[in-house]
Amino acid sequence: MSLITLTTDFGLKDPFAGMMKGVIYSINRDVHIIDISHGIENQDVFEGAFIIFSSFNYFPGGTIHVVVVDPGVGSSRRPILVRAHDHYFIGPDNGVLSLIISGDTNSSVYEITAERYFLRSPGNTFHGRDIFAPVAGWLSRGGDPLNFGRMVPDYCRIDIPVPAKNEGRLEGEIIYIDKFGNLFSNIRLCDIDEYCSGMDGSSMLIRIRGHEISGIKRCYSDAKKGETAVVVNSFGLLEIYSYMGNAARTINAKKGDIVWLCFQ
Amino acid sequence: MSLITLTTDFGLKDPFAGMMKGVIYSINRDVHIIDISHGIENQDVFEGAFIIFSSFNYFPGGTIHVVVVDPGVGSSRRPILVRAHDHYFIGPDNGVLSLIISGDTNSSVYEITAERYFLRSPGNTFHGRDIFAPVAGWLSRGGDPLNFGRMVPDYCRIDIPVPAKNEGRLEGEIIYIDKFGNLFSNIRLCDIDEYCSGMDGSSMLIRIRGHEISGIKRCYSDAKKGETAVVVNSFGLLEIYSYMGNAARTINAKKGDIVWLCFQ
Amino acid sequence: MSLITLTTDFGLKDPFAGMMKGVIYSINRDVHIIDISHGIENQDVFEGAFIIFSSFNYFPGGTIHVVVVDPGVGSSRRPILVRAHDHYFIGPDNGVLSLIISGDTNSSVYEITAERYFLRSPGNTFHGRDIFAPVAGWLSRGGDPLNFGRMVPDYCRIDIPVPAKNEGRLEGEIIYIDKFGNLFSNIRLCDIDEYCSGMDGSSMLIRIRGHEISGIKRCYSDAKKGETAVVVNSFGLLEIYSYMGNAARTINAKKGDIVWLCFQ
Repeated sequence: MSLITLTTDFGLKDPFAGMMKGVIYSINRDVHIIDISHGIENQDVFEGAFIIFSSFNYFPGGTIHVVVVDPGVGSSRRPILVRAHDHYFIGPDNGVLSLIISGDTNSSVYEITAERYFLRSPGNTFHGRDIFAPVAGWLSRGGDPLNFGRMVPDYCRIDIPVPAKNEGRLEGEIIYIDKFGNLFSNIRLCDIDEYCSGMDGSSMLIRIRGHEISGIKRCYSDAKKGETAVVVNSFGLLEIYSYMGNAARTINAKKGDIVWLCFQ
Repeated sequence: MSLITLTTDFGLKDPFAGMMKGVIYSINRDVHIIDISHGIENQDVFEGAFIIFSSFNYFPGGTIHVVVVDPGVGSSRRPILVRAHDHYFIGPDNGVLSLIISGDTNSSVYEITAERYFLRSPGNTFHGRDIFAPVAGWLSRGGDPLNFGRMVPDYCRIDIPVPAKNEGRLEGEIIYIDKFGNLFSNIRLCDIDEYCSGMDGSSMLIRIRGHEISGIKRCYSDAKKGETAVVVNSFGLLEIYSYMGNAARTINAKKGDIVWLCFQ
Repeated sequence: MSLITLTTDFGLKDPFAGMMKGVIYSINRDVHIIDISHGIENQDVFEGAFIIFSSFNYFPGGTIHVVVVDPGVGSSRRPILVRAHDHYFIGPDNGVLSLIISGDTNSSVYEITAERYFLRSPGNTFHGRDIFAPVAGWLSRGGDPLNFGRMVPDYCRIDIPVPAKNEGRLEGEIIYIDKFGNLFSNIRLCDIDEYCSGMDGSSMLIRIRGHEISGIKRCYSDAKKGETAVVVNSFGLLEIYSYMGNAARTINAKKGDIVWLCFQ
């Protein structure tokens, strides 16, 4: 059994993800297809990049990840196949795979040009079904990435913003908000360790949208019900949450909001 | 591995789709079950009919498609099994399978009456679980459709409205709106080809809700950000979209709205 | 092929369920993973308990059910593995598995302590991925529940409220509301049978939020469009619905609302 994952902004109301699965199973039945998320915000390439980068490593090596957040579908932007971190990735060359590519110095990028694998389609609006799904299906049957096109040296690149040290403070930002209203910052456990090596986490102060929060909790329920608090989450990121509540609503936060971390 | 797809208006909040899968796997583990959509509007039989008709063909021949949009569940409406287009379809005889049946002159319709396959249930509200899922499971293990009931000559029929030529204009309507707010009309590529054979698509004028749109784009990003434009989509249908926006909201459109196509 | 189901409050926007599946497939590819629901209300332990209790029995014996509604994740609440009803269940010991445990006098509860199976994680916020998924994966490969920890005699218990006889009336409450706005009460078919043995269902009167409804319909469509009516649903529970409408909205009902049943 091969494994193929899907990450898109297609949602689950429409039959788009289902059609992609039909195309894949038409080529190879010996595969499990797993939805990572179809809930990426419409056309939010960064969010797609962040989600696949945060998720792929929980799948076994050799897994094929199809990632479709693709506002330029049908235009001159290139479809690409990436080999990196011992996994495969398929999607548009618009940055959605760039965290993956730049995270592995041995990654290879192939431009997908082998039209014999593509589905014929009346329109240019659904390469997820017509290009990416069949390429994933055929790749899962084995064979060389070079079957699908030549290796290319360049790719469209976007990056996760890096927290900055600024007048003794570590300055990050909110990069993701989950279903519970938890606010994921771009401040990683390693950034905190570096910033405050040898200091006491309990004297740490986090500031966001005028709110000050003291210390880092060990788990969600170390806060009181409704209290807004901070935890290092399972992505290894500093996360602002409201226990049994919704931090995004409570403090009216949105992606891009600044998070400061300092000592009292 | 057999393939069974599910298309329902059950949504994903409740355990209804999961229960159907449990019933199927209780009968046959050697099957992949694929969700086409559980996001059909509540009781919208036409939408269910349109979605399965647009999707089934991306699955391999022999696939079993269970389609449950069933406001008459438990009443005298018949459960049916259909063989058409080299696929199988299972659902209520309320029109949800009629585009499938009428689209293949060799289709066969069987009334499902073999109660020995049904689950015993305290209620008559969930034939998806109690009738359609077990029939799909047993059918996927092989055997004859006649095991489940006799062939019947009639079925409940609904149709996709056909665009009409009207004073030199082609007059269609919006039949589906996707998650992105893209408006799918019932005007097919072949209708356009027939209507304007030999004419230049760039001089085409589309009118909807008082808005006039010139020409047909080749892909979404040929429009400017926020621009409302028209494309032939991957269902082969004329689609009104707003680039990086939501056409349904921008022009306040809904299903049933009229779309005119003419030449300037 | 083993079967593993997932029931959580994670929703489908985030990659949480997908990551759990990746962890499971990293351990055992020979498994089908089925979503029962990821739409449990945030932190609603009772709803999770009700859904898994109502659903598990539609899966074959030996199925492994992972249930994660876990506001106390990372705290001292115990992760448990349960053997009951010839199925396995994995989740936090916060009551979410207690209807399962108390429903089988032969059930066994194991505290999961074998950290060698856990994923190392930077945070304590996602035991679904770091503890419950890998335990499910390893259990699906066979082996003894005792591999994961010792048997324990106690567990955290919650119950479905039992309808009460009160001045000749049967008094229940709304315990679940589905996507269609149908109101599931805690009054079971057997409660009705006991309460009104030998009486005529058609003379039954149901009262909820000041509305009186006469008799029990045989199926949804026995009511007129928009009419609020009552049916015994496929969970074996008395259900208030509005035909082709939304009863929750129509009568402004919510979970916990009282339902009275009496004779006219």
